[in-house]
Amino acid sequence: MSESRAAIGVDIGGTKVKGGIVSSKGALHSRVEHDTDVHAGTKSIIATVHELLERSGELGVAIGCIGVGAAGFIDSRSGTVIFAANLVYDDPKVAEALKARFGLPVVVDNDANAATWGEKIFGTAQGAANLALLTIGTGIGSGFIVNGELLRGATGAGAEMGHTIVDPSGPLCGCGLKGCFEQLAAGRAIARLAREGVTENPESAIMGFASSVEDISARDVARAAAGFDETACRVLRRAGQALGVGMSNVVNIFDPEVIVLGGGIIKVGEPYLGPARDQLVKMTMSQRRRPVRVDVTSLGAESGIIGAAALAFDQAA
Amino acid sequence: MSESRAAIGVDIGGTKVKGGIVSSKGALHSRVEHDTDVHAGTKSIIATVHELLERSGELGVAIGCIGVGAAGFIDSRSGTVIFAANLVYDDPKVAEALKARFGLPVVVDNDANAATWGEKIFGTAQGAANLALLTIGTGIGSGFIVNGELLRGATGAGAEMGHTIVDPSGPLCGCGLKGCFEQLAAGRAIARLAREGVTENPESAIMGFASSVEDISARDVARAAAGFDETACRVLRRAGQALGVGMSNVVNIFDPEVIVLGGGIIKVGEPYLGPARDQLVKMTMSQRRRPVRVDVTSLGAESGIIGAAALAFDQAA
Repeated sequence: MSESRAAIGVDIGGTKVKGGIVSSKGALHSRVEHDTDVHAGTKSIIATVHELLERSGELGVAIGCIGVGAAGFIDSRSGTVIFAANLVYDDPKVAEALKARFGLPVVVDNDANAATWGEKIFGTAQGAANLALLTIGTGIGSGFIVNGELLRGATGAGAEMGHTIVDPSGPLCGCGLKGCFEQLAAGRAIARLAREGVTENPESAIMGFASSVEDISARDVARAAAGFDETACRVLRRAGQALGVGMSNVVNIFDPEVIVLGGGIIKVGEPYLGPARDQLVKMTMSQRRRPVRVDVTSLGAESGIIGAAALAFDQAA
Repeated sequence: MSESRAAIGVDIGGTKVKGGIVSSKGALHSRVEHDTDVHAGTKSIIATVHELLERSGELGVAIGCIGVGAAGFIDSRSGTVIFAANLVYDDPKVAEALKARFGLPVVVDNDANAATWGEKIFGTAQGAANLALLTIGTGIGSGFIVNGELLRGATGAGAEMGHTIVDPSGPLCGCGLKGCFEQLAAGRAIARLAREGVTENPESAIMGFASSVEDISARDVARAAAGFDETACRVLRRAGQALGVGMSNVVNIFDPEVIVLGGGIIKVGEPYLGPARDQLVKMTMSQRRRPVRVDVTSLGAESGIIGAAALAFDQAA
């Protein structure tokens, strides 16, 4: 009955480590979340797995494998963290450490790769051999499946669409480049454009939601746009058009069956996603391409956990 | 002795159809070139293959398979042309037509894909599982190998890096988009920037090589730059930096072992390639990436013919 065993999926970033017990059908049965110990990434993962193994014992669920999705550059063959921007790993050989501790097969991959694999196995992109995932939060994470396999690159440092340059005169990014896609289309861009917008139009409804100009968030802008505030709508339109430019680039490079969108910012909805889709339709028409399906993730905020488990089922079990 | 049989490789574009007999070691034994009949692409290919088969008979070389690289969107599974911008195909089912006519196994793929495969099998990127090719002529063609396989996309319309947007306020492209990579970094960009440059600086040495401002070619600019003409050097530096931006995007997306550069414009040399490499080094350092190898094609102008034959050896024979 090995095929009915569950997996533990873990999703670790610079602030939170989340994990769950995931059935072989992709159902999330139990879920834990803690603050990441930013000086001990591997310890944070081990504590989470330990807690979930105890829970599985209480629930009477057999665990067959462990999957981890981690922010950063990962060598997935050895399950080693090569580079993580916001987190120190006490032991970069995460897969080895987990195998030694728990005696179960382990897969460790980039978090966006895990989420992308989750969409293919359990999510909205089931069965697609060529697909793209864009996770839009403060920045933009991305994952790509080409000919049925994850694109990881020669050193595990691929699939960083968020850092492709789409405007060389654009704002400076934390990665050192100027005009990265994520600086123009994600949460940080919405906040920056809104700060500029309310400076020009102080009467904008955005200031009814934000405590100060410096603290304006994408959510404040979305709320103001829901009331048809002109500045807020303009800001979301500009960021949405930039998302459309990035999706246009994804289509020209990957020609995917579907682009899956995830991340907190997509909840902003039509004032942001509408202009992005319009930009993409314009592009596919002018290049005489087949229309591209754009879907919102069906795994939601848990796509990282479920995706890590999906990778473990496919590559470790 | 089937492994020692040769292949016929054909490379067809909007102006020329080129072909050759290629040995199983990648040596080009015989070569023909004709103007393309732009209203009868398939007829042009058939005439070329016919001529080469006759030659192979005279040479006493056994032909085992046929490979065709064609400009446009190609469904490589069926060997059918989906869309070609500069050429009408009298019969879009090219592979079927060639099989019926010559009774040999046939592969038809995009010309840049064929050239990319050629670099992996016989060229400078031998053995690489992840590589990128940029062919820089009037525009930019591209090909990518991911996990050892060509990236073709769901409909054969992928790997069009030349049409990714790198500056939304840039010049209009023939594909209908604004600020495409190829509009900023390739031959057409060099000519456009040079026209602007000599209008500002009519004393530039560029005008000693061009018959009129309208007729300035990338070669005229390269000649003037060889004599250290300031305007010419500035033009090539700007186009080279744009090439560097595109290579930076390739690295962020694909993390390839090597980027192979081909096409007529790379002959311009250091005044153009130097700034591109500088841009790439800046990018890999600021993102703390491993340095990326950038090579010039070792198959030269015949990479399309040799690549088409390489695909035939691997996928048809």
